[in-house]
Amino acid sequence: MDKISSKTNQRIKALKKLAHKKYRQEEYLIEGFHLVDEALKSDAELVLVVTTENQLTKVAAILSQQVELLLVTDEILNDLTDAKTPQGIIAVVRKKQPSEQNFSGHWLVLDNVQDPGNVGTMIRTADAAGVDGVIISKNSADLYSPKVLRSMQGSHFHLPIMEADLLPLLQKLKGHVPIYASTLSANSVDYRTIPNCADWFLVMGNEGAGISKDVQKMADQFVHIPMVGQAESLNVAIATGVLLFRWL
Amino acid sequence: MDKISSKTNQRIKALKKLAHKKYRQEEYLIEGFHLVDEALKSDAELVLVVTTENQLTKVAAILSQQVELLLVTDEILNDLTDAKTPQGIIAVVRKKQPSEQNFSGHWLVLDNVQDPGNVGTMIRTADAAGVDGVIISKNSADLYSPKVLRSMQGSHFHLPIMEADLLPLLQKLKGHVPIYASTLSANSVDYRTIPNCADWFLVMGNEGAGISKDVQKMADQFVHIPMVGQAESLNVAIATGVLLFRWL
Repeated sequence: MDKISSKTNQRIKALKKLAHKKYRQEEYLIEGFHLVDEALKSDAELVLVVTTENQLTKVAAILSQQVELLLVTDEILNDLTDAKTPQGIIAVVRKKQPSEQNFSGHWLVLDNVQDPGNVGTMIRTADAAGVDGVIISKNSADLYSPKVLRSMQGSHFHLPIMEADLLPLLQKLKGHVPIYASTLSANSVDYRTIPNCADWFLVMGNEGAGISKDVQKMADQFVHIPMVGQAESLNVAIATGVLLFRWL
Repeated sequence: MDKISSKTNQRIKALKKLAHKKYRQEEYLIEGFHLVDEALKSDAELVLVVTTENQLTKVAAILSQQVELLLVTDEILNDLTDAKTPQGIIAVVRKKQPSEQNFSGHWLVLDNVQDPGNVGTMIRTADAAGVDGVIISKNSADLYSPKVLRSMQGSHFHLPIMEADLLPLLQKLKGHVPIYASTLSANSVDYRTIPNCADWFLVMGNEGAGISKDVQKMADQFVHIPMVGQAESLNVAIATGVLLFRWL
């Protein structure tokens, strides 16, 4: 197997482009053994695995499916990763085209959540709590950025995740399924008073501004988590965890 | 009022040192109007407020107590802050010497939590949930680092927070108050089965390794949050939120 050692190699340049959102239309990069493992265990399509000579035996051992393998120098691999301590393995994954969803069950909806760590943690938490899927507004942090991928820890391989314009989607759903929106506004009810229910959508909003006005109008009920201490608010990912683990 | 414009000014050099943990034995820096406001509303001792000409009127308006004010150039202020978008105000706060605690009520204990965002969010969440105090092991992320301070959002002004060697402290408490430890081990019980109780200590552990073996031995009961999805674990701050808001 040939080893690529030049940064100006066309394939390396193509991989390098995947660091930028605009080039991630169809494919994205994942880093580290855990994520590659999660991808292999799922129905995700691995296009290419990139590794170094040091890791080759370990990588070959986990590759159960037919995947193209590219060998590069340590320097090039480090250059391609976002991680502080690269593990010597990255992979290109093809984005899954979301199939038409029937939206039954319990769905978490992210409206303009900006912090990549929050987006990733919210999806990982939704996975652990057992939601049926996640909808993320197009103005939220990019699902396929290194930071979001790192904090999701592979949960996007377990759950259907749909990037959408929230307003038309919620307009279609309105009246068919209860839509809850987490807000601190005065007409918001204690989340513990919400009855158990086979289907719902739960909308969580931006870290500073909360849920946008238009999206709020689509909600059937505002909910909040009563706070007894002096903190003014909860981090949005924490609030998501508290709500989901109470309701599910 | 004189404006300091030289980076080699002795006072600026002293302030700059507070970016490093070893110089934060007695004092630390806070950034932004929100945190300075929170400090002013609390019993914290503000040693010095540093601002720029642009912000002077706004700063003077919020300073209700007698505090020394230092005027610096924008360049120097930006150089002293960790924030991406500095608000033109920082302040030096004297660390509060923790008074002898009787440790009644509900306490959150952090054992070797390394991510500054997690430490800050856990303390902010504890504040919102209404715990009586937080104990943080000395090998956790530094409470007074800019990132922890940012994610605490002033909760350290609301709650007693004690940095401690966990082992001797828990040894003293053992037998007097139930000590719960969050672990995924086999003999861990569902957190929802824990009865309501006037006093407890809840120990949360390191992001990767969990609670250290020695500290685990101090626990009366292991607890965990059952997960129904495919995620292998919850982020430690999320788990803290789920536990505290169920128990409090």
